[in-house]
Amino acid sequence: MKIDKDTKILIIGLGIIGGSYAKGFTKAGYKIDAIDTDPDTISYALENNIIDKGSIKADRKMIEEADILIFALYPHIFREWIEKNQWYLKSGAIITDVTGVKGCLVRDIQGFLRDDCEYIAAHPMAGCEKLGITHSNEEIFYDANYIVVPTEKNTENAINTCRQIGEILKFARISYLSPEDHDEMIGFVSQLTHCIAMSLMTCNHTEKLEDYTGDSFRDLTRIARIDETMWSELFLLNKDALLHQMKLFTMEISKLERMLMEADKEGIKDMMRRSTARRKLFDKENQEETV
Amino acid sequence: MKIDKDTKILIIGLGIIGGSYAKGFTKAGYKIDAIDTDPDTISYALENNIIDKGSIKADRKMIEEADILIFALYPHIFREWIEKNQWYLKSGAIITDVTGVKGCLVRDIQGFLRDDCEYIAAHPMAGCEKLGITHSNEEIFYDANYIVVPTEKNTENAINTCRQIGEILKFARISYLSPEDHDEMIGFVSQLTHCIAMSLMTCNHTEKLEDYTGDSFRDLTRIARIDETMWSELFLLNKDALLHQMKLFTMEISKLERMLMEADKEGIKDMMRRSTARRKLFDKENQEETV
Repeated sequence: MKIDKDTKILIIGLGIIGGSYAKGFTKAGYKIDAIDTDPDTISYALENNIIDKGSIKADRKMIEEADILIFALYPHIFREWIEKNQWYLKSGAIITDVTGVKGCLVRDIQGFLRDDCEYIAAHPMAGCEKLGITHSNEEIFYDANYIVVPTEKNTENAINTCRQIGEILKFARISYLSPEDHDEMIGFVSQLTHCIAMSLMTCNHTEKLEDYTGDSFRDLTRIARIDETMWSELFLLNKDALLHQMKLFTMEISKLERMLMEADKEGIKDMMRRSTARRKLFDKENQEETV
Repeated sequence: MKIDKDTKILIIGLGIIGGSYAKGFTKAGYKIDAIDTDPDTISYALENNIIDKGSIKADRKMIEEADILIFALYPHIFREWIEKNQWYLKSGAIITDVTGVKGCLVRDIQGFLRDDCEYIAAHPMAGCEKLGITHSNEEIFYDANYIVVPTEKNTENAINTCRQIGEILKFARISYLSPEDHDEMIGFVSQLTHCIAMSLMTCNHTEKLEDYTGDSFRDLTRIARIDETMWSELFLLNKDALLHQMKLFTMEISKLERMLMEADKEGIKDMMRRSTARRKLFDKENQEETV
């Protein structure tokens, strides 16, 4: 499918990510329909010309017309929605999403979805600790990674459609991972980091610590402001991969604890050197040089 | 002591912090002398008008003239320097520093220092992962916290002198803590966060992770680029407080691990709510409102 100005794109869920998708498509000259159960969200999106048409329920005509449906919902609501409304889909429709975990969801939905429609998973690795369409901003993607997560069931056509979405929304990089590699990676770079930030935020009850805090601490705990409904669900859907990553991390912290107890200065310095060398790989300026 | 344009201020150590101090004082109209063993550092500081006079050794005349001496050296070098050169100090001279740990150092130096001079500890909670005078920048203090760390041996005069230094360098906030409270706080907000960032950086050896990384991960690991000589020394000087904070943190991570294993969604959500509520206290906009 070549996405052009006549392609009917329907976004379901206009939160921070769905809203930012809508803004990005609209800015690029595409017409977007949207469904969100919150009337204020739809009014806001219409009044601000973020979408072309909107509905607060699963509007049958909108669904029937859509060539591409993009779901930006809590995972379990996404799954239920497809189960319930899939018979309204146009034959050949492509479904994609923005969900933060994949393994448990993708094969499940691909298993029960009608044969003449296709679901291809994708994950925009961008976000914001604030919620709702009023905070949406298409520019959060410009610096971010768009990961397409195909399975053996997906076609070149669907993979290409996702690539075009990534390009239209101006993601800095488009990558491809299997659901299993995706979930392991996300368990490490995203979920483990949220676990750490939360634990750091709740482990020490000393009052007035905020008076003495430098920027390192603020940076490390920015993501400790966390949407508990979304993230508790994502954690549990990716439980095994996340527990594995937590184990790797806590074993490493224990090694450092032991070196401290033993005053093993050389061991600590060696770990610091390895940390510094590896962190350099993650600097954006460094990546741009090597891309 | 009222710091005025005739006050002789000597900075020993012109690295990232000493250099930023020198720039801040010079910009505010004060004349700064400096000692640094690196000839390039002194040349750079003179050529760029960051200091008025410089020396690459413990220049006896400079030391004899100084009313205030500010040490920005590795802790053990600082201690040795005072031990060796204290007999050159002017009677009534005030010594202060920028060292990141206090307990073990302050009482030790106060114990052997001449009775007619005074050492008062201070800690500018600002920094940069880059090193050296070429990266120094007095603006890193404008947003930061300056902590004065007096003991029962310190006089009002010395505490006031430090307060003036904090004001001249335009720190956002000046606070006062005992050495023990300082070290416990710093074990948590600074050293533990560095331990976490390092462990995160070295615990997972998957290649190409940097290709999939979002900003959360970059924020959490920015401080994983760490000067191993400085930080291994700071960690070991504050070993007990740091080990205590690491224990609090790893116990909290273990609780979260257990809740995940047991799929205790309500428990996880409750922890997320506590994390979110506490993190809000640390937002700068929030602090400004309440100050």
